[in-house]
Amino acid sequence: MAGLVRINRDRLARRLSEMAKIGATPAGGVTRLAFTDLDKEGRDLFIRWCEARELSVRIDEMGNIFARYGADDQPPVMAGSHLDSQPQGGKYDGAYGVLAAFEAVETLMDAGITPSRPIEAVCWSNEEGSRFPPPMIGSGVFAGLFDRDDAYARESRDGKKQGDELARIGYRGESACRAGDIHRYFELHIEQGPVLDQKGLRIGIVEGVYGLKWLELTIRGEANHAGATPMEVRRDALAAAAEIITRAERLPADMGGNFRLTVGYIAASPNSTNVIPGEVVFTVDVRSEGQEGVEALARSVTDIADEIASRRNVELKIQTLSDNAPVTFAPECRDLVEQMAAALELPRQRMHSGPGHDAVYLSHVCPTGMIFVPSIDGISHNEYEETTPDDLAAGADVLANVLRQSAET
Amino acid sequence: MAGLVRINRDRLARRLSEMAKIGATPAGGVTRLAFTDLDKEGRDLFIRWCEARELSVRIDEMGNIFARYGADDQPPVMAGSHLDSQPQGGKYDGAYGVLAAFEAVETLMDAGITPSRPIEAVCWSNEEGSRFPPPMIGSGVFAGLFDRDDAYARESRDGKKQGDELARIGYRGESACRAGDIHRYFELHIEQGPVLDQKGLRIGIVEGVYGLKWLELTIRGEANHAGATPMEVRRDALAAAAEIITRAERLPADMGGNFRLTVGYIAASPNSTNVIPGEVVFTVDVRSEGQEGVEALARSVTDIADEIASRRNVELKIQTLSDNAPVTFAPECRDLVEQMAAALELPRQRMHSGPGHDAVYLSHVCPTGMIFVPSIDGISHNEYEETTPDDLAAGADVLANVLRQSAET
Repeated sequence: MAGLVRINRDRLARRLSEMAKIGATPAGGVTRLAFTDLDKEGRDLFIRWCEARELSVRIDEMGNIFARYGADDQPPVMAGSHLDSQPQGGKYDGAYGVLAAFEAVETLMDAGITPSRPIEAVCWSNEEGSRFPPPMIGSGVFAGLFDRDDAYARESRDGKKQGDELARIGYRGESACRAGDIHRYFELHIEQGPVLDQKGLRIGIVEGVYGLKWLELTIRGEANHAGATPMEVRRDALAAAAEIITRAERLPADMGGNFRLTVGYIAASPNSTNVIPGEVVFTVDVRSEGQEGVEALARSVTDIADEIASRRNVELKIQTLSDNAPVTFAPECRDLVEQMAAALELPRQRMHSGPGHDAVYLSHVCPTGMIFVPSIDGISHNEYEETTPDDLAAGADVLANVLRQSAET
Repeated sequence: MAGLVRINRDRLARRLSEMAKIGATPAGGVTRLAFTDLDKEGRDLFIRWCEARELSVRIDEMGNIFARYGADDQPPVMAGSHLDSQPQGGKYDGAYGVLAAFEAVETLMDAGITPSRPIEAVCWSNEEGSRFPPPMIGSGVFAGLFDRDDAYARESRDGKKQGDELARIGYRGESACRAGDIHRYFELHIEQGPVLDQKGLRIGIVEGVYGLKWLELTIRGEANHAGATPMEVRRDALAAAAEIITRAERLPADMGGNFRLTVGYIAASPNSTNVIPGEVVFTVDVRSEGQEGVEALARSVTDIADEIASRRNVELKIQTLSDNAPVTFAPECRDLVEQMAAALELPRQRMHSGPGHDAVYLSHVCPTGMIFVPSIDGISHNEYEETTPDDLAAGADVLANVLRQSAET
């Protein structure tokens, strides 16, 4: 095994902080939604940095960006994440994985290490899916799990087409969005949960990712005057939604085991104080370690919604927006992450990821691994998301050595 | 008593239909929110019609429009309503009262009747309050119940100031917004509830209006990742809101009597499928015939919200957006409406109004009366709101004769 490399933590911190200015929110987070002008600005900045180091940059049809270091004749080792964010999201969610991959490459360049396989730092398009559902569409099309033209046709809630917005910001590239032969893929990410922080650990070796399903429920009742309409004749879409949400929230506890259920999005129409809501749309995000758990939880939500809608005489439509099976990562990748974290003497543990990541889709086309660093108090998808400078540097050190090992052996 | 007049039903229908084109929705309703470009267009059209009949038009500081017929030296008889609508609202809600008042004036002109008191057809600004709460602000400032500058400073949910928007559409007039000496005020309106339609009646003689309170509840929990955050550590603002809404909806039935409670508006933040909502704002509209009922209902909502917020460890802020005491209209106005409906041989009954109207505020400064016509199936604040042509004509006939009697005697 070659000696250990150490990344330049100040350079990484500087770049993270510069990227975080694009779409910065007052409380220290970012709002940089996929395929907006701010997303373009973040991408432009990343490419400027890559080109300054003479990496060759390729943009594919979904706007995924690949910045390559090294020989062209072998399957590459890839590492990356995403630059888009949640609305009022955190500054490290995604951006850390992209910029740490680039930092790892620079570290190898600075150390005069020429790996025998090329290394690519990758930025995947629209990981969050909050503007254009479903999430992880850039890596999903790349892995052949979604159709490119279907992805182009997906619409935002304000009626814009994903493909049009991608072209509008100048990132609908020429190169085919399709995985070739890839040696390995690694993704470094903040944990987004409280486990590492609570235990005082520095590195999570991710064994796999929870399965998830996104349901969208549309309830149609009857809009009517709040003052003139007696309670007993109402068909109130929001009252029905509220009852469903209240009952659904209790399911994970009732079912026991490792379940998560979240209603993150809701929109009522006409949404006016003195009008009984005629229509409500809301989403339900269900997750579990195993596929049976995901299915059982989704089925219970559907049963509850059916019962409540029929009792209240409102129409109910349920659509599945996203459906990801649980994933187990490649043993050789998990082992390599663990070995490098151990060599760097970083306190660590093996764990599962609740959130999905681009690595989930990459695992369909090549051996894949993930590295977590702690999120302070487990706060994520929130402006107050934070990770210590030491942990940011530790994760990038692990990644740099993992990439070096993978590219040299 | 002078002979009965009859309005020109075709002319009224034509004008209603022309006004309904401004902001028309596909299903036959209108979206013409206060102080938007469409509101301006509706106002411009009304003024063109008034000026074509050589009425003198005055616009006050709140954008209320007064179109006067007849002698200038006596306290006027006023009749009117509003031209702004709910989002996806009905075409007769408000516009009918304004255009029928104007039709009544035209009918008297056509009949060569010169009343001894002037008659004014009035359009009150921002009755609905759905863009700029509270509702009925134009008549409220006019009646001295709200401060003009406070009203100007009120902001829409997208951060526009009411006074600026009023100026932007060219309707921040010069004349003082303050009631002078007014002989009587009448308002003709669709019922917006099912009572007249269910009983096959044509005219409602409105005895008074329910009291109402608008509460705005803001819940602050903690935004966090839907996948990474275990259920037991969450502080989910939407789950808290849903529980409050579900419990509050049952209050009217539990308390018995004439209560109405509606949650019409809700907004979650960041409102993304895979983020636990960190903040939710929603409104509660409570109504009852008596003040004690309104207070008791609002108190129960507050108690429920306090209990749930404290159990769930989320912050709760409750603000009162609107607070209107129940109103009883002037006996001489109610009696005159009943007398004219009887003379016209229209099936009728005395009743209370659940919705508030500009007439509520006018009742603070002059003897006031209201006339209702049926809403088919009681549907209102909805694109499908409808009233038969016969009922539209009948209501305007009553109004024309009520105005004539009030202006001549």
